[in-house]
Amino acid sequence: MPITILGQNQYGKAENRVVKITRDGATHRIKDLNVSVALSGDLDDVHYSGSNANVLPTDTTKNTVFAFAKEHGIDSAEQFGMALARHFVEETEPISTARIRIEEYAWERIATPEGEAPHSFVRQGRETRTAQITYDGTGFQILSGLKGLTVLNSTDSEFWGYIKDRYTTLKEDYDRILATDVSAVWRHEWSGRDGEEAPEWQSSYESVREIMLGAFARTYSLSLQQTLYRMGAEVIEGKPELAEIRFAMPNKHHFKVDLEPFGVKNETADGAVYIAADRPYGLIEATVLRDGAEALIPLDLTNL
Amino acid sequence: MPITILGQNQYGKAENRVVKITRDGATHRIKDLNVSVALSGDLDDVHYSGSNANVLPTDTTKNTVFAFAKEHGIDSAEQFGMALARHFVEETEPISTARIRIEEYAWERIATPEGEAPHSFVRQGRETRTAQITYDGTGFQILSGLKGLTVLNSTDSEFWGYIKDRYTTLKEDYDRILATDVSAVWRHEWSGRDGEEAPEWQSSYESVREIMLGAFARTYSLSLQQTLYRMGAEVIEGKPELAEIRFAMPNKHHFKVDLEPFGVKNETADGAVYIAADRPYGLIEATVLRDGAEALIPLDLTNL
Amino acid sequence: MPITILGQNQYGKAENRVVKITRDGATHRIKDLNVSVALSGDLDDVHYSGSNANVLPTDTTKNTVFAFAKEHGIDSAEQFGMALARHFVEETEPISTARIRIEEYAWERIATPEGEAPHSFVRQGRETRTAQITYDGTGFQILSGLKGLTVLNSTDSEFWGYIKDRYTTLKEDYDRILATDVSAVWRHEWSGRDGEEAPEWQSSYESVREIMLGAFARTYSLSLQQTLYRMGAEVIEGKPELAEIRFAMPNKHHFKVDLEPFGVKNETADGAVYIAADRPYGLIEATVLRDGAEALIPLDLTNL
Amino acid sequence: MPITILGQNQYGKAENRVVKITRDGATHRIKDLNVSVALSGDLDDVHYSGSNANVLPTDTTKNTVFAFAKEHGIDSAEQFGMALARHFVEETEPISTARIRIEEYAWERIATPEGEAPHSFVRQGRETRTAQITYDGTGFQILSGLKGLTVLNSTDSEFWGYIKDRYTTLKEDYDRILATDVSAVWRHEWSGRDGEEAPEWQSSYESVREIMLGAFARTYSLSLQQTLYRMGAEVIEGKPELAEIRFAMPNKHHFKVDLEPFGVKNETADGAVYIAADRPYGLIEATVLRDGAEALIPLDLTNL
Repeated sequence: MPITILGQNQYGKAENRVVKITRDGATHRIKDLNVSVALSGDLDDVHYSGSNANVLPTDTTKNTVFAFAKEHGIDSAEQFGMALARHFVEETEPISTARIRIEEYAWERIATPEGEAPHSFVRQGRETRTAQITYDGTGFQILSGLKGLTVLNSTDSEFWGYIKDRYTTLKEDYDRILATDVSAVWRHEWSGRDGEEAPEWQSSYESVREIMLGAFARTYSLSLQQTLYRMGAEVIEGKPELAEIRFAMPNKHHFKVDLEPFGVKNETADGAVYIAADRPYGLIEATVLRDGAEALIPLDLTNL
Repeated sequence: MPITILGQNQYGKAENRVVKITRDGATHRIKDLNVSVALSGDLDDVHYSGSNANVLPTDTTKNTVFAFAKEHGIDSAEQFGMALARHFVEETEPISTARIRIEEYAWERIATPEGEAPHSFVRQGRETRTAQITYDGTGFQILSGLKGLTVLNSTDSEFWGYIKDRYTTLKEDYDRILATDVSAVWRHEWSGRDGEEAPEWQSSYESVREIMLGAFARTYSLSLQQTLYRMGAEVIEGKPELAEIRFAMPNKHHFKVDLEPFGVKNETADGAVYIAADRPYGLIEATVLRDGAEALIPLDLTNL
Repeated sequence: MPITILGQNQYGKAENRVVKITRDGATHRIKDLNVSVALSGDLDDVHYSGSNANVLPTDTTKNTVFAFAKEHGIDSAEQFGMALARHFVEETEPISTARIRIEEYAWERIATPEGEAPHSFVRQGRETRTAQITYDGTGFQILSGLKGLTVLNSTDSEFWGYIKDRYTTLKEDYDRILATDVSAVWRHEWSGRDGEEAPEWQSSYESVREIMLGAFARTYSLSLQQTLYRMGAEVIEGKPELAEIRFAMPNKHHFKVDLEPFGVKNETADGAVYIAADRPYGLIEATVLRDGAEALIPLDLTNL
Repeated sequence: MPITILGQNQYGKAENRVVKITRDGATHRIKDLNVSVALSGDLDDVHYSGSNANVLPTDTTKNTVFAFAKEHGIDSAEQFGMALARHFVEETEPISTARIRIEEYAWERIATPEGEAPHSFVRQGRETRTAQITYDGTGFQILSGLKGLTVLNSTDSEFWGYIKDRYTTLKEDYDRILATDVSAVWRHEWSGRDGEEAPEWQSSYESVREIMLGAFARTYSLSLQQTLYRMGAEVIEGKPELAEIRFAMPNKHHFKVDLEPFGVKNETADGAVYIAADRPYGLIEATVLRDGAEALIPLDLTNL
């Protein structure tokens, strides 16, 4: 009698680097994605005996990604992921759930004295846009997000009034730098189940990003948690189509350097010199929910 | 009336790089850890208003890590994490749960003609050992693990009999290379609640690693899923103290190069030449459970 | 009698992450640098016997970087590096040459509905600006540069007419994607020896970047080498203050995916689907010199 | 009249990840290399006009690497690189010099209760072995090397007696940790010109590595420069076939943590607790030459 059983499992092809060019005469557009497929379903046999009868090879999932980019086009990461997820579940009997994760890299046209070049691009290198699309045969769960949005306030940040115990040496600070790399994932209410029209993904993304940046800039901060919450609350308040948003925000410490030993004053009020530290770093994680919404975004964002 | 509320949240200092030397005369021992602290509890106020009255600063959690390394020593990552987690929950009123994640880097003594050097070390660079210790005031959850254990079978691997659809071009293969970077996390039954003695963490780790490697080497593989399951089943069967084990195993593709255009035969049976591919890669994830055990390890391993 | 001698050598503190905020009322400016110091001179004794009598500790070079950021300000990476290099050589007897390498990370102000935020920034994430300043007690050598400038032409690139040998399988291509990560280093004629005024470093950088991008966009390319040369020639022709420019440009391959097996046409002329490959990649390196100039930029750019 | 000319240049395919399995019955051996080709010669036209008449495509150089791995085998990185370099120069008229750079990743057999597995391997993950082979049609220059050899002495290291200036705050230290990641490149006298037999590359490598580790362990160090020099001197003294060796050694700082504020003594003599710092770090670079030898290894090792 076996004493072990198979638990939760999934498989697929990760990091398909698909680039799609579309041409409108001499004017080209570019979509640059990194697409990862994870499928689950009736997959006990392949684990127990190695029978691949229910396995769609990961190589086929890769081919499907590239073929769909041509056949269906890439309007947005969300729409592309939805087409893929629906295909895997609906066309492959043993697959019951498909999860598509996408990173998107942004490009802009090269500016020349003669105007914007029609088919020449420079990569923006800003944050990476992300999306996770899950389809289980009845409806979609759509998570949009970003990572690597690095922001810094050079003032309007304090930190004091905290617990002091035996191991506390930190001095209270009434004017510090606040800097972080924002990772955020937000969940759309829309599931496609009720025939409602899908959100306009591109403008939704831009709007969330703009609200987050505005809230970061505007918040006079007593803690990074407060800033995080304000960013999330303003997004949920401003975007009725969203149910929840989750953040992972490292506190990228900028320590004011002690220059007293050299007879140099390094006063914050004058504009000071800081050392940007690598490790360790604070790490603040939280979800902001629309009141009444379910919390469905997983705790750890690194993979999203 | 506010329309948003705070959901799940945690905070702490990540990636404290603590190195402990212990001396037994001229013979030294080294422990080299990367310790991340995440605390949760009664933290609504800091998010809503910026009040830090319930906040133990991440700087203090950092200090505690280093002080505990001296005061309590580091016998193993698991024991060290337990001491830290218990401290944060028991000594800081608003903190109800502490989660400590640890990476450990292995060193060996430098071999010299005169024998092993007593206080000179070379980093092994093998896999990274990991541990996650969670304490909620009543008991512990202990996950041990590893990542970056790169293994390869140069034969005894086949892949055929899979689903073929419109997008399938993969040829069946009766003798291929099977290579992967094993990430694995296993959960100990032990919770510290019932007064039972804790496992011997170091020997437990070594034994799990040895069983996994042995199962990888011994399994004649019809799919990477089958190999994964055999590795997990042998671990659970051989280690009665474990309840479940979860794997994330990329299929590190080694494609046999087509040398026919150059008039060169590249037959597998002769020993062939392969290109080691980067992206995309297959990604296989699954949990193997002791029959009757609860599945508690989270789906995505990257952060563990 | 010793059978070995000391050859070329240098030492210093690498990767000092200095961030300088300057305040003009509520409006702040930020400079974000990574500064590496390498000193050489009369350093035989420290190598032969361990005598540190001629050694300025790397810790002191670190302190100097931060103190200078406050005392002298950071107008540009080049000017800051010049102040540091001159200081080390002129104030520390045994040091005869100082080489300062700097990476600079660009930030822009966060745009809000109320206009540009005065002290809130988002990191641009574009290319990294670089500088290398060397001072030997008589004059400066100033190299400016950039790395990680990723560009792509979606047409106007061909590749044919090359050598075919036994190992050639590549098909000629009359319409391909041309993409690269530009690393470039250019040398200013100015040495500070003759009392001439120093270049305006910031506008010089922007102008070189603009010329490079324009040349990349405008060149109808028969090879990446040709594109590289055009970029270099236009920079040298347009910037009389420069003597030479060196490039390292990987050919970031975008392979058109064969969708024929799925009955899908993937014609370049329609806008096609490509796979962005990681490794291997072509790597093209060359220097473009003003006729008559000496070639002084080192061969390998990775460190610059 | 053109005002720019082409300077030094080279091109080729970088990072060909070639894996070779050889079979001796059920017992297999594995070679795992990363091979980069750089060719130079009569390449003016491709830069000036885009004519590819003298260009062997980088795709062909890639094919050649894989075909040679099968046709000629991979006995060692050095021998394999020599075969490739000679081929490119001798078979392709416009190519006058070929430089092959190779990284090698080490694997060991998996140990099982039944003994060493015959065709199952685990990657060692220790240092990366490197080689650079240059051929100009008359003779070879062979550089062997390694990178990522991380070593640490937990005592027998002091640092004092250095220059103190206005910016010096460092305390003298009479018992510190000394840790570094060794990157080293050494040059063989052998050029293949005079018919002398080539060195035994594998045993030469192992012997250099062993001497370096032994010298690191044995040297009572007053500075990292002194340790570096001893490592180099012992290699040159012990290996008559070598002419010079160059090192780049970061000083991986381990700072003793101040636990006094918590009433905890952290005495070095007892075995102390350290924080392993990331940036900044000291960086020590030097060449050790056999007396009378020419210094031919380039200054910056990062690319080697």
